[in-house]
Amino acid sequence: MLSIVLIGTGNVAQQLHAAMSNNEEVKIIQVIGRDKKKLAPFNNSLKTATGYESIADADIYIIAVNDDSIATVSQHFTNKSGLIVHTSGSMPLSVLPTSARRGVFYPLQTISLDRKIDFSEVPICIEAEKSEDYKLLKELANAISDQVQIMTSDQRKAVHLAAVFVNNFTNHLYHIGNEICNEAGVPFTILNQLILETAKKATQTPVLKAQTGPAIRNDKHTMKKHSELLNNKDYREIYSVLSNSIQKTHGKKL
Amino acid sequence: MLSIVLIGTGNVAQQLHAAMSNNEEVKIIQVIGRDKKKLAPFNNSLKTATGYESIADADIYIIAVNDDSIATVSQHFTNKSGLIVHTSGSMPLSVLPTSARRGVFYPLQTISLDRKIDFSEVPICIEAEKSEDYKLLKELANAISDQVQIMTSDQRKAVHLAAVFVNNFTNHLYHIGNEICNEAGVPFTILNQLILETAKKATQTPVLKAQTGPAIRNDKHTMKKHSELLNNKDYREIYSVLSNSIQKTHGKKL
Repeated sequence: MLSIVLIGTGNVAQQLHAAMSNNEEVKIIQVIGRDKKKLAPFNNSLKTATGYESIADADIYIIAVNDDSIATVSQHFTNKSGLIVHTSGSMPLSVLPTSARRGVFYPLQTISLDRKIDFSEVPICIEAEKSEDYKLLKELANAISDQVQIMTSDQRKAVHLAAVFVNNFTNHLYHIGNEICNEAGVPFTILNQLILETAKKATQTPVLKAQTGPAIRNDKHTMKKHSELLNNKDYREIYSVLSNSIQKTHGKKL
Repeated sequence: MLSIVLIGTGNVAQQLHAAMSNNEEVKIIQVIGRDKKKLAPFNNSLKTATGYESIADADIYIIAVNDDSIATVSQHFTNKSGLIVHTSGSMPLSVLPTSARRGVFYPLQTISLDRKIDFSEVPICIEAEKSEDYKLLKELANAISDQVQIMTSDQRKAVHLAAVFVNNFTNHLYHIGNEICNEAGVPFTILNQLILETAKKATQTPVLKAQTGPAIRNDKHTMKKHSELLNNKDYREIYSVLSNSIQKTHGKKL
């Protein structure tokens, strides 16, 4: 069984904790977090600590703190013999101290506390420097997920950027759709099936072929009417920039 | 049983035809299309016509042609006693001849021929001018869908615009994510779960609350790195315009 020390009390830490609880192959033996209150949810079943004075010995130390704190926090683990990993998509492996056995354990999912995540479906992107560390990380990742992907820091950075487009930016487009519906007095839920089908399609057929709408048809009349309908200047700009990019992608001129 | 004449042979016409086949409450009695070849799929079970000389008498005439042709095509039905409807999201009811009983029957879904659609889940937005015509359209819509929504031409226009954001533009963001993955040598399928969960979340919880990512965190360092990673100038502009709009929406400054 792999022994884990988890550092952090935020979304990622809590979701990992949930995924690793009652797991036969992994055991979190300690959770470290600065804020006593935030440690409270972990208190019942686990040893917790608010500082780095008495870090337990573990096979793997998972640093699940925000990107800017990874470098500082990881300095407390340089004399440990276990593997130190962070969980960030955008930070390279090299942010961890060179003197340590180091790696990355990045769960690729939109993680928020109010939604229970089925971790078995979440891809875990792993990186290490030695084959035995890869073996260890694979064991850890396989214990909670069916999808484990080895990738370099550069590849992970690219995937993280792609995730910003398909998750963060897409969600903002949903928000704009929501606002347009609200203003027109139509329930946003009318778009539910369209949103779900668009997503499902993207996972099953080539997205380039799935492109529809006024931009790819070069339907200038509809595009003009749409632009006039948008009261918000930023939304008009988004409409124009995205339509333009769709037309360039598909070899058409605005 | 409602008798239907279907005008058009494109995606919408074919999907409606499929949804209305073997339906106990609706019967398509004729399909009209200019192109003999495109009428072929309808030939087996139905009367077809390439012109408007011998239009069958029906309860409802569904004009499922492209937006620009609706006005012209509908002129052939002015002396009919049945209800004439078009299927367009962006065209008003008033594009149909005033002398006719007229309405709109707009299925809100991304319709492409290569995907079988479960019409029972597709919202049908209907509009008419008289209560008996609303009754007729409801009957037709309920025969193929569980979600029927009455809306005005202005509301439908707004919904159509919202659909461009959540479907067309979202699909383009998927395409950009796909390209970024390709360039990095990572399979796009790694984003499947993220894409599906983002969509599912939007249908279940408020999208405004679901917003995550570097823009809402005002993580300037990551945003700068992302911008540098993007080789395509248009994608950089999309990144910047969307990040800016997210920050304004959530009261932050770039």
